[in-house]
Amino acid sequence: MANQPEYRMTGSGNYSYSGNSGFQRTAIEATKGLINKAISEKLEISNFVSSSNSPKIFGLADLGCSEGPNTFLAVQNIVDAVELKFKHHMLLGPQLPDFHVFFNDMSSNDFNKLFTSLPPERKYYATGVPGSFHGRLFPSASLHFVHSSYSVHMLSRVPKEVENKNSPAWNKGRIHYGNASDETFKAYEAQYLKDMENFLDARAREVVHGGLVALILPGCPIGIPYSQVFIIKGLELLGSCFMDMAKKGIISEEKVDSFNIPIFFPSMQQLEAVVKRNGCFSIEMMDTIPQPKLKPKVFSSTLRSGVEGMTKKHFGDEFDLDMLFDLLSKKFEESFSNFDPEKAVTQFVVLKRKDSK
Amino acid sequence: MANQPEYRMTGSGNYSYSGNSGFQRTAIEATKGLINKAISEKLEISNFVSSSNSPKIFGLADLGCSEGPNTFLAVQNIVDAVELKFKHHMLLGPQLPDFHVFFNDMSSNDFNKLFTSLPPERKYYATGVPGSFHGRLFPSASLHFVHSSYSVHMLSRVPKEVENKNSPAWNKGRIHYGNASDETFKAYEAQYLKDMENFLDARAREVVHGGLVALILPGCPIGIPYSQVFIIKGLELLGSCFMDMAKKGIISEEKVDSFNIPIFFPSMQQLEAVVKRNGCFSIEMMDTIPQPKLKPKVFSSTLRSGVEGMTKKHFGDEFDLDMLFDLLSKKFEESFSNFDPEKAVTQFVVLKRKDSK
Repeated sequence: MANQPEYRMTGSGNYSYSGNSGFQRTAIEATKGLINKAISEKLEISNFVSSSNSPKIFGLADLGCSEGPNTFLAVQNIVDAVELKFKHHMLLGPQLPDFHVFFNDMSSNDFNKLFTSLPPERKYYATGVPGSFHGRLFPSASLHFVHSSYSVHMLSRVPKEVENKNSPAWNKGRIHYGNASDETFKAYEAQYLKDMENFLDARAREVVHGGLVALILPGCPIGIPYSQVFIIKGLELLGSCFMDMAKKGIISEEKVDSFNIPIFFPSMQQLEAVVKRNGCFSIEMMDTIPQPKLKPKVFSSTLRSGVEGMTKKHFGDEFDLDMLFDLLSKKFEESFSNFDPEKAVTQFVVLKRKDSK
Repeated sequence: MANQPEYRMTGSGNYSYSGNSGFQRTAIEATKGLINKAISEKLEISNFVSSSNSPKIFGLADLGCSEGPNTFLAVQNIVDAVELKFKHHMLLGPQLPDFHVFFNDMSSNDFNKLFTSLPPERKYYATGVPGSFHGRLFPSASLHFVHSSYSVHMLSRVPKEVENKNSPAWNKGRIHYGNASDETFKAYEAQYLKDMENFLDARAREVVHGGLVALILPGCPIGIPYSQVFIIKGLELLGSCFMDMAKKGIISEEKVDSFNIPIFFPSMQQLEAVVKRNGCFSIEMMDTIPQPKLKPKVFSSTLRSGVEGMTKKHFGDEFDLDMLFDLLSKKFEESFSNFDPEKAVTQFVVLKRKDSK
């Protein structure tokens, strides 16, 4: 985990994640009905009655939970839906399982904030789990439901070739693959495939047979070239703001060359292919949710809360983030007519752990 | 949990818990052999083979873990001893259970520090669990071993009567029960009995049958009146330093009157009685470990790291802790010949969850 980039969302101030995650909350609300449907129709709970009379535990993890409060909404919704399913099937009579909820994020996440803001009226046992979801986090067969919202598009690292001056994938003058060379895109894609394979391998061991994995992530709409996708264009614009600051001598151009944002936005086909190749999960649901239309200011703040941490880590604490995002806001407003909100999509996928592999 | 006092050990600086917990580490090292013996002779692991071939999880909790690093030493020792037992019995063949370790402390504990300092080479899945061990923290029958070192002597609150001006237990001019009225002591004792009953009730539900609870706590040596016990005398001396500051007009006397340290040091008989009354656990081992001899300075620092948090909470951040502990150091040095290290003891108790209640 030592080489993992910092994915911690900004913890406080105007651009805190908790204050700028309305965008992600909208996704959670939009997927609420879909998650309820998945639990009602796809989750297997027969193993909760077939064996002995001993107490049952329902293991639930939110991967990339950040510091709250969105994670609490998502978890509460899942617990309610599972309870409803148990009650509807009267499988355990009046006895429901104990819910063991695992809030996961990188160890640099503000777990202190998460812990002190846990809903006091919660009906579950809460724990925090530090570490990267690209590796193992939980004992074998200990989870029944895994939820991850706006997290699995994050890569475990910037692809090596993209950071290598002598590689054709070297990403000079840019911070993402939007307007980059084909080699840069391919390096990002290869890293994504490797990371997702690791992610699925780890979850395959941790999730019980019949258990579900629900992923919510921003992706590429079908038939749209990645370079035209809303968020990717946004990152390209942000990259040009860094270069503007370099040209003014505020930061060095070299520092911009070595800065890359480790995020990949897969298409549904790419997501489907990686799940099938892994082989441990069946795809039970696959859906897209239109992105909410964002005003330039809101998009700029959302982006800032997402990249502030890694920007500071690379450029130093004294880096002028206000200047950067003032520049970005202006550029956004000038060119916002070129930003097509139709060219953005949130993907919703439900996987079920197969019985054997 | 809203009424719970702050038990968070001081997080940083010269008087941080992690920098002043050598005393507690000595206890962990002294109990290492005893814990190994308990695991080797008392822990029941037959349930790990009797049932199906499905993967097995060994649940291990450290209650009142603080921010590290002592908790990592204690946990590693337990994991090693359990592994050794499994290997010795060849119960699972080459397959060992997955160790799921739960680090618990109040939500005000610095879990961020704990998480970023987890041993990278650990052989267990680590989680943090915020909340009071006087209530439920884990799903039913999810733990196989519970460890708690220098924590269960802490009460869930200052006894109500001790804080009530109109009660005969009102503890005017003191901060603990050492030199207080009999009513004050009885109020502390009643709170302790209630807290331990709650502690044992919660653990009885969480620990599997045949699972163990190992408690390490400072207590009263047999046959010594509590008012003569080393640590209780130390707290009495600390109380007199608060009063000195009040007489000098630095803090108000009223503020000292309303300040009480919620810690109780039981005798072995008291501990035994509360376990027997609860009825869910058998006492498998009971031992005492002599306290290491402490120099006045070390004792003063250890005490400071333990009470700094609650002192600041009561008297405010601007309270002059240096002045208080300078006073204490002087008084200690003047009167240290009256402090008999023989009149101090660490108690070590191993309980086993009975099969039925």
